[in-house]
Amino acid sequence: MSDEQTSFSDMANAIRALSMDAVQAANSGHPGMPMGMADVATILWSEYLKFDPAAPDWADRDRFVLSAGHGSMLIYSLLHLTGYAAPTLEDIKNFRQLGSPCAGHPENFLLDGVEATTGPLGQGLAMGVGMAMAERHLNATFGDDLVDHRTWVIAGDGCLMEGINHEAIGLAGHHQLGRLIVLWDDNNITIDGAVGLSSSEDIPARYRATGWHVTRCDGHDPADIRRALDEAVAETGKPTLVQCTTVIGKGAPNKGGTSGVHGSPLGEDEIAAARKELGWSHDPFVIPDDIMAAWRAAGERSKEAHCEWTGRLGASPHKAEFSRRMSGELRDEAKATKIFRKWLEEPQKVATRKASEMALDVLTPLLPEMIGGSADLTGSNNTKTAATAPVTPDNYGGRYVYYGIREFGMAAAMNGMALHGGIIAYGGTFLIFTDYARGAIRLSALQQCPVIYVMTHDSIGLGEDGPTHQPIEHLQSLRAMPNVLVMRPADRIETAECWQIALQQTDRPSIIALSRQGLPQVRNAPDEFDMCSFGAYRLKRAGGKRGVVLMATGSEVSLALECAAELEKQGIGADVVSMVCTELFDEQDAAYKADILPSDALKVSIEAGTTFGWERYTGTDGLNFGIDRFGASAPAPALFEKFGLTADAIVPKITKHLNG
Amino acid sequence: MSDEQTSFSDMANAIRALSMDAVQAANSGHPGMPMGMADVATILWSEYLKFDPAAPDWADRDRFVLSAGHGSMLIYSLLHLTGYAAPTLEDIKNFRQLGSPCAGHPENFLLDGVEATTGPLGQGLAMGVGMAMAERHLNATFGDDLVDHRTWVIAGDGCLMEGINHEAIGLAGHHQLGRLIVLWDDNNITIDGAVGLSSSEDIPARYRATGWHVTRCDGHDPADIRRALDEAVAETGKPTLVQCTTVIGKGAPNKGGTSGVHGSPLGEDEIAAARKELGWSHDPFVIPDDIMAAWRAAGERSKEAHCEWTGRLGASPHKAEFSRRMSGELRDEAKATKIFRKWLEEPQKVATRKASEMALDVLTPLLPEMIGGSADLTGSNNTKTAATAPVTPDNYGGRYVYYGIREFGMAAAMNGMALHGGIIAYGGTFLIFTDYARGAIRLSALQQCPVIYVMTHDSIGLGEDGPTHQPIEHLQSLRAMPNVLVMRPADRIETAECWQIALQQTDRPSIIALSRQGLPQVRNAPDEFDMCSFGAYRLKRAGGKRGVVLMATGSEVSLALECAAELEKQGIGADVVSMVCTELFDEQDAAYKADILPSDALKVSIEAGTTFGWERYTGTDGLNFGIDRFGASAPAPALFEKFGLTADAIVPKITKHLNG
Repeated sequence: MSDEQTSFSDMANAIRALSMDAVQAANSGHPGMPMGMADVATILWSEYLKFDPAAPDWADRDRFVLSAGHGSMLIYSLLHLTGYAAPTLEDIKNFRQLGSPCAGHPENFLLDGVEATTGPLGQGLAMGVGMAMAERHLNATFGDDLVDHRTWVIAGDGCLMEGINHEAIGLAGHHQLGRLIVLWDDNNITIDGAVGLSSSEDIPARYRATGWHVTRCDGHDPADIRRALDEAVAETGKPTLVQCTTVIGKGAPNKGGTSGVHGSPLGEDEIAAARKELGWSHDPFVIPDDIMAAWRAAGERSKEAHCEWTGRLGASPHKAEFSRRMSGELRDEAKATKIFRKWLEEPQKVATRKASEMALDVLTPLLPEMIGGSADLTGSNNTKTAATAPVTPDNYGGRYVYYGIREFGMAAAMNGMALHGGIIAYGGTFLIFTDYARGAIRLSALQQCPVIYVMTHDSIGLGEDGPTHQPIEHLQSLRAMPNVLVMRPADRIETAECWQIALQQTDRPSIIALSRQGLPQVRNAPDEFDMCSFGAYRLKRAGGKRGVVLMATGSEVSLALECAAELEKQGIGADVVSMVCTELFDEQDAAYKADILPSDALKVSIEAGTTFGWERYTGTDGLNFGIDRFGASAPAPALFEKFGLTADAIVPKITKHLNG
Repeated sequence: MSDEQTSFSDMANAIRALSMDAVQAANSGHPGMPMGMADVATILWSEYLKFDPAAPDWADRDRFVLSAGHGSMLIYSLLHLTGYAAPTLEDIKNFRQLGSPCAGHPENFLLDGVEATTGPLGQGLAMGVGMAMAERHLNATFGDDLVDHRTWVIAGDGCLMEGINHEAIGLAGHHQLGRLIVLWDDNNITIDGAVGLSSSEDIPARYRATGWHVTRCDGHDPADIRRALDEAVAETGKPTLVQCTTVIGKGAPNKGGTSGVHGSPLGEDEIAAARKELGWSHDPFVIPDDIMAAWRAAGERSKEAHCEWTGRLGASPHKAEFSRRMSGELRDEAKATKIFRKWLEEPQKVATRKASEMALDVLTPLLPEMIGGSADLTGSNNTKTAATAPVTPDNYGGRYVYYGIREFGMAAAMNGMALHGGIIAYGGTFLIFTDYARGAIRLSALQQCPVIYVMTHDSIGLGEDGPTHQPIEHLQSLRAMPNVLVMRPADRIETAECWQIALQQTDRPSIIALSRQGLPQVRNAPDEFDMCSFGAYRLKRAGGKRGVVLMATGSEVSLALECAAELEKQGIGADVVSMVCTELFDEQDAAYKADILPSDALKVSIEAGTTFGWERYTGTDGLNFGIDRFGASAPAPALFEKFGLTADAIVPKITKHLNG
């Protein structure tokens, strides 16, 4: 065995030892994948990956995503060995313990160098597609000098079996993302046993059918790994899948190659046997100096490239704009408040999806970092503007993605763009199909990605398409999710305000729920602008003594105004509160909240969706008008009547309650 | 043109005319697909499909699923023309109007002959896979005499682009479902325009890679359609994809072949032009007698086969059992109450996922119609029992499906099995991955399918896997969905009761949320059995004067008991209510509810998930203990402490509130 080979093996075994020892110490975790992919990862990180541990936010670094996130000890090992400030050895010893950044699955908000939070299978690869799209777009915009890097993904059989895989690789193949390389850990094992228990597909053929280049290597033969990675790097017209045939838990002589090594500690005996098998005589968590030195040298590999890049950036005419975009800072004029404020003086009855288009018509020319799209509902979501030409392989500089009928893939790609940086991604579908994309919406929230979901057709107001298309539980089920702004504007003004709010978020996604049907403008001059930032605000004050506070969202705000007018006629003072974003309202101080929702009035909620959860604001004595069943197929006005969401149906119930 | 050809064209044009006229009358709908697929559907329904309009519940009928559900006028036309009792012509004239069974998308609960509710793309095909699995299983169980039919699916480009397509066809290919035939409406058009805007894949190659047979036909040439369908029928070892190349909106001379005809009425002018083009001179909604007669004859085609089948059933030794299974009636002994009642006398501390396995160990031998499975988490979900051998192409009679890493595909397949009848499908994954399967869970609820979701690892109690795997909003977001029972049992007894409840449902799905961690048994002799059917019940009564009612679910019930014990020590009487299923509790009468949650006590909820929505039961003056942020990675006890879910943290807050 040559020295080179020895050194390579030692480096890979350092990953194996850290992984099996950390999992054993935690008595919890997944040693099989890091041990199986240690050889491939060693070659990748020591010879191919462009990165600088001292500058983890270097804009032109290669992106590396561990899509098979359960193998988290692989990336913790790599980050530690190559010289990132964290994780420290102490962090690794505390793998999976409270406070350690070495969480069970890699969390992008805990460690630099973890580009994405992974674990929900398939999504890492799909975010990698978004990162690779971002790279090509920024390359087209700023040139090779500033943007010229690859996206590498390690994915397991689970990532490839999940449905989102089909959507993600379809997008990547269609967009000819030649700088995306997926290393498939082909170990033939899933949790339940051999892959053959549940699947018989020819994965390479499927990838080829979807526009990918495919190559294979023995994932334990360094020369063969290099050959395959060279081939992947040389292929620039198609994304590449590298089938890395490996033995799961490689090095564990008895359990390696079985599902037993996937998600459980090896046990002391097997670890001792593995140490023997690997020729690794060092104590747990001890990395000999020479091996650590080899790894640190790998971490220094791209220093010069980074330095040269910094020089090019300094000399570039794009410097200011590129830096602004990558920092996520908005242009001052991008708020466009002046323009939107004028809308107060020009009331229009429009669907809020149309109002959203009007806002985008204003915003997209001002913010070139905005990249829009839709999951094949462009004309319904109103997401495309004149400023956003299609993104195509011939024009990566475009700003509109035809995502196809791929809601989950779209959402994950948007997360990838946000994580890459330099882009504000927004994308549309029907609100009902948040169900399809929900796994990625949750990762937007958990990863603190400020992506913007344009979710139209937000209630029974969509009418004839019926219950399969009518959201009932969706608004509340999304409000129940941590760290997401769910906004449901009532008119053109509120829609513009919601867009402003969404664009200003730096660490959470926004969902803007928009109507299919036309809505009257409820805000007019001389009203204040930017009221939505309070989350809820008093749109109309009771004429006399306040007896009722009607709170509503979106299309039901004008209905609440109707109800209030009728109540006032009957001598009952009624406030109307537009509850455009409960999350923002919850963040207001107690005095503001008490003023908007005073304790001495009957509180009534109106929303054309489930009443579940509205008791938080209306209390046990309040009234909640909504729909606690599935919808129906009919023109919208007939449905609002059927479900009792008219002033004629609501007002008598309120007066009865007040008198009863 | 031969007579045969003329008749065929007339029959197909009857579909086209009904479809374009109904959409026009509704001023809403999708004419393009029914017009494009009219020829294929005519051949299928008049020459291949085995069905009897007079007996839509004939167990051995072929199943037909319109996966591209937006083309609903296609199936409404077919049902009407072939002689089903509904829809009537009047129903069709009222397409998409309130009260018409001809809803925007086909709803299985509105019309016989609509085997599945479709519209959310991709799921119809995936349910077809479940139906075809059910057919093979029942065939293996009861023989060719009683079960020997095909499943036919019409799917569009959207169905094939959705991620679930990959999961569904992977399952079908692996299981070699040779009696499943998918007719792909290859019209090259999506809503946004040409398919090429968003996709470049070689679909036939992808299907072949996944174990399918693929053939192609000109979807407007009857001879070629027949050749392709013959080929599909002859292929028994693999499912078949028939690529039917069609012109969307065929017959509309100006708009046909464009996305303009997909989802909008043609308009009066284009309809007039289409009448000319098609040679269809009849008024709207008028079907000439000879054409109607030809269609009615098609509807009579399988009468004899049905009659023979009825004879075979009558003579079969399986008659009683087959009929019982198809009717969904449980065996009397299947409740196993006697066995479970004994558990009251043998308290055990077990994880409820383990308790679920114990219940399944009892139930699966008693109920041969139960088919279990897991999305590659068999050992974690504890879903497999000795009675359930794997379902494989060599043993379709098996009762356990290794679904692979395909949560959405699994849920849709379970829906398909339930819709087929004769099977009670249950399947497991982690509760967090309800996000992946959510689109199908909603269709379980909407379609009134009594499938059973075994969702383990139901809180931060799963520990080290961290926030990507810890449900926070999931319980509440599922409770917000109409027509689903969400049950979270506290111990072994409650788990058995929840299984009993789930098995007795006939028109709604159940989600049983189960702990990873061990839980003490809170119910013991001489307690009553079957308390969970009340949804919530008093597990412990206050010692003295009742000051507090603590309500909790699952793993937090024992915590509530600890809190109550501490409060009683301090002289505060505390009830403990196990709120195992809020939906069932909501169905109790007012007196029961008032007794369990009396108005004169402080009400406190404890659940290791979001507090969102608990105000419904605790009121504005109550206290809600939960987790309103993402979780963290650490051993479970450390997490319960971190998030304040311990008696030490909760009790002082309650006493402070009482004193404050």
